[in-house]
Amino acid sequence: MSDLRRIDPGPRLCEATVYGDRMYLSGMIPEDTAQDTTGQVKQALAEIDSLLAKGGSDKTKILSAVIWLGDIGDFAAMNKVWDAWVVPGQTPARATVQARLNDPAMKIEIMVVAAI
Amino acid sequence: MSDLRRIDPGPRLCEATVYGDRMYLSGMIPEDTAQDTTGQVKQALAEIDSLLAKGGSDKTKILSAVIWLGDIGDFAAMNKVWDAWVVPGQTPARATVQARLNDPAMKIEIMVVAAI
Amino acid sequence: MSDLRRIDPGPRLCEATVYGDRMYLSGMIPEDTAQDTTGQVKQALAEIDSLLAKGGSDKTKILSAVIWLGDIGDFAAMNKVWDAWVVPGQTPARATVQARLNDPAMKIEIMVVAAI
Repeated sequence: MSDLRRIDPGPRLCEATVYGDRMYLSGMIPEDTAQDTTGQVKQALAEIDSLLAKGGSDKTKILSAVIWLGDIGDFAAMNKVWDAWVVPGQTPARATVQARLNDPAMKIEIMVVAAI
Repeated sequence: MSDLRRIDPGPRLCEATVYGDRMYLSGMIPEDTAQDTTGQVKQALAEIDSLLAKGGSDKTKILSAVIWLGDIGDFAAMNKVWDAWVVPGQTPARATVQARLNDPAMKIEIMVVAAI
Repeated sequence: MSDLRRIDPGPRLCEATVYGDRMYLSGMIPEDTAQDTTGQVKQALAEIDSLLAKGGSDKTKILSAVIWLGDIGDFAAMNKVWDAWVVPGQTPARATVQARLNDPAMKIEIMVVAAI
């Protein structure tokens, strides 16, 4: 088997696993939940950028993303930030659904699998 | 790294990514949400068939499927269509949960990973 | 392509698919839903252990886990069992959200991808 590497492993989970030519990120959430949807989505995407870089990947290599919105009514606001973040012609597969998250102030969580 | 190929890339997402010996589909949804659950499930599965074919795969090679139902009460109706669609002996790993989808008229969304 | 192997294939789904150096498990759920959250989480994790073993993997090789809780209020109770189950330094990527499951008595469902 390939080497299984973990990024920022903690006692409960790690931020990402790197295995062979793929990496799997934990659900990325905003740190500052006092911000509005736009701010929270930007934070989550910035964390994804940071983690992908640590694994030797980047946002043009995302294979698949699942987006959970605390309120599906934030779909348009989320997409506005997302659309500005992705690189034209290099967009990933994606699904977006509503789900209640652990912290009611948290508006978004995003989980991605990326190529390396 | 292997070549990362995208099927039907748009400005927000692509319909599927193909990487190495696996492909990742976006959440497939029915086009015609005026149809009942049976009709909507059939539509989503037909879209999956079509995308898998474009990536060089087919429904006997699905590794994993996540099914989101707008109303978990549609579980039996969804399964009736699903059971007729899958090939005996070649069924995938699967999970089904309820989730509110972007369009309230939309009854199902399915996201799959498949071998090629 | 690698050989695609299925563990416990049924007419609707299989318990897990094994493909190349990775395996994909179906959403694991507790058998005895009369038990409390602690008991149900233990059951689901025991099923994951069992399936991973059948595929030649184990809990230190989980790449990614999605946890659906019927009630996100069970987050702390779930984590207490989870934290005792994972191996320090070998924790996986993870996301946890609330989702209504098929059986209202069912408190948890967990879906994992693991290295082999």
